[in-house]
Amino acid sequence: MTAANPRIGIIGTGAIGGFYGLMLARAGYDVHFLLRSEYAAVAEHGLRVNSAVHGPLLLARPQIYRDAAQMPPCDWLLVGAKSTSNQALAPVIAQAAAPDCKVVLLQNGLAVEDALRPQLPADVHLLGGLCAICAHRSAPGVVEHQALGGVNLGYHSGPADDEARAALLNQIVEMFRKAGVDSSAMPSLEQARWLKLVWNVPFNGLSALLDAGTEALIGNADSREQIKAIMQEVCDAARARGLSLPEGLPEKLLLGTARMADYLPSMYHDHVHGRPMELDAIYAAPLAAAAEVGVAMPRTELLYHALRFVEARGRG
Amino acid sequence: MTAANPRIGIIGTGAIGGFYGLMLARAGYDVHFLLRSEYAAVAEHGLRVNSAVHGPLLLARPQIYRDAAQMPPCDWLLVGAKSTSNQALAPVIAQAAAPDCKVVLLQNGLAVEDALRPQLPADVHLLGGLCAICAHRSAPGVVEHQALGGVNLGYHSGPADDEARAALLNQIVEMFRKAGVDSSAMPSLEQARWLKLVWNVPFNGLSALLDAGTEALIGNADSREQIKAIMQEVCDAARARGLSLPEGLPEKLLLGTARMADYLPSMYHDHVHGRPMELDAIYAAPLAAAAEVGVAMPRTELLYHALRFVEARGRG
Repeated sequence: MTAANPRIGIIGTGAIGGFYGLMLARAGYDVHFLLRSEYAAVAEHGLRVNSAVHGPLLLARPQIYRDAAQMPPCDWLLVGAKSTSNQALAPVIAQAAAPDCKVVLLQNGLAVEDALRPQLPADVHLLGGLCAICAHRSAPGVVEHQALGGVNLGYHSGPADDEARAALLNQIVEMFRKAGVDSSAMPSLEQARWLKLVWNVPFNGLSALLDAGTEALIGNADSREQIKAIMQEVCDAARARGLSLPEGLPEKLLLGTARMADYLPSMYHDHVHGRPMELDAIYAAPLAAAAEVGVAMPRTELLYHALRFVEARGRG
Repeated sequence: MTAANPRIGIIGTGAIGGFYGLMLARAGYDVHFLLRSEYAAVAEHGLRVNSAVHGPLLLARPQIYRDAAQMPPCDWLLVGAKSTSNQALAPVIAQAAAPDCKVVLLQNGLAVEDALRPQLPADVHLLGGLCAICAHRSAPGVVEHQALGGVNLGYHSGPADDEARAALLNQIVEMFRKAGVDSSAMPSLEQARWLKLVWNVPFNGLSALLDAGTEALIGNADSREQIKAIMQEVCDAARARGLSLPEGLPEKLLLGTARMADYLPSMYHDHVHGRPMELDAIYAAPLAAAAEVGVAMPRTELLYHALRFVEARGRG
């Protein structure tokens, strides 16, 4: 529990929590995993990451818990669960947090910290991390890591002044780097979140709606042009909110994605498995933020409401 | 073959050709049906319309043909086939046409006459008809008629002067009315086509993309608002092209549709059965016409290209 060997808790051990938790534990960090449905499988077989980058990785005896009450108080809590469960997780996070805990939401979308902040103790530092990673959970305790892995981090809110914020960001960036994970501190968490949205808004929704991976979506001229148009809507909204985005970002992201192997985004998996899709964080919040500054995102809106229709029917 | 008893040919005996051909034949008109895959079934069992409006209707011994070369020359040709087959049907239409034949395209979408016109003899009068009807073909020679049935007609092109055009329109309107079918002559075929598009553009595409009928699409607030927004795009484009549309048309159409029983538009059936969808007539042509006058239709565009993606994958 010292700065030299901070205690790290992983809340939500799916693809994100599993991958980063395993990488940090392999690097010698004191990592504690909170597990629910996967507890028995991980207790028996350990935590496994089949990584196309690092090879097959196994954490044979991770420190695992069924209940946050049994976890030791953590200096850092990395939340890898989907943003749809944040409200339910708030008391769990509060319970696992040591005094002055740093809580990092490793989640896509916008405003996920805003929604959680009021439910956390005042001494908690809240940070956000955007993971550029192609990974998914293929079985209990098993993560398929396909490509990439970098994390861009920003400070959201908490008791730290500017200097202390920068120090905390450096600390987590260093932890990730020591664990073999690319990582950077971002001057603005809002900007980091919008940058990631430029990719997530088109690819997540279209993969679920059209039942297609990145290869099919980019390989077809119709969907590729619409992806670009949707990306442009997100860029326009971000710039209208005063954020600075790289020139030609949609083209760059399309080129980068085309170079990757076929990838099925998380929303595709959520949809196929009947889990809630992250529609609030990835669509509703950016649409509301764009509307606040008078920017229309008609394609994004249609995509969002079509996904809401699909999700409502799935529940019906 | 006199004006008093014109000879009517039906090209494409699906839901549209079957229903209107049967209604005209029952009223005593001399109706000849060109059939392909349904010939054997209709020869054996006749042509049947299960109508929720008129009751069960049977034409036990319709005049049917496998080949246009065997048909007598027709004064009127009603084309009820999907617009996707117009290019293939052009020689068939020319073959079945008597001199000065009136060809009526009973088809949705825009510019369907423009595409066919160059392939028809110069003496042919080309007209368009918009059918407000809920009907689909449930089996070879069997049409389910669920509601409505009116036809709005306009003159497209041909040798007639204004007065003769009006007379021809009156003639076909009278034929339909004598057959128990609501019908009106429209001052502008373009306007009639855009009016129908306001309904077709959202409902046809969303029914195929979301696998849903009118009841589900209107019953869900997300899809209902997007339908209204798409309708507004179509209205804006039509008005920018100088056409006059009723005030509050989207709301009126939504109310009218909500009063109908659940209905699956033709594009839904085309999609489910792996037939080509009428994407050119219902999407590409209106989008091009809107672009000509500088009007953007972003939601319609996304819907169109998503449907193109779905159709291309279906062929793949």
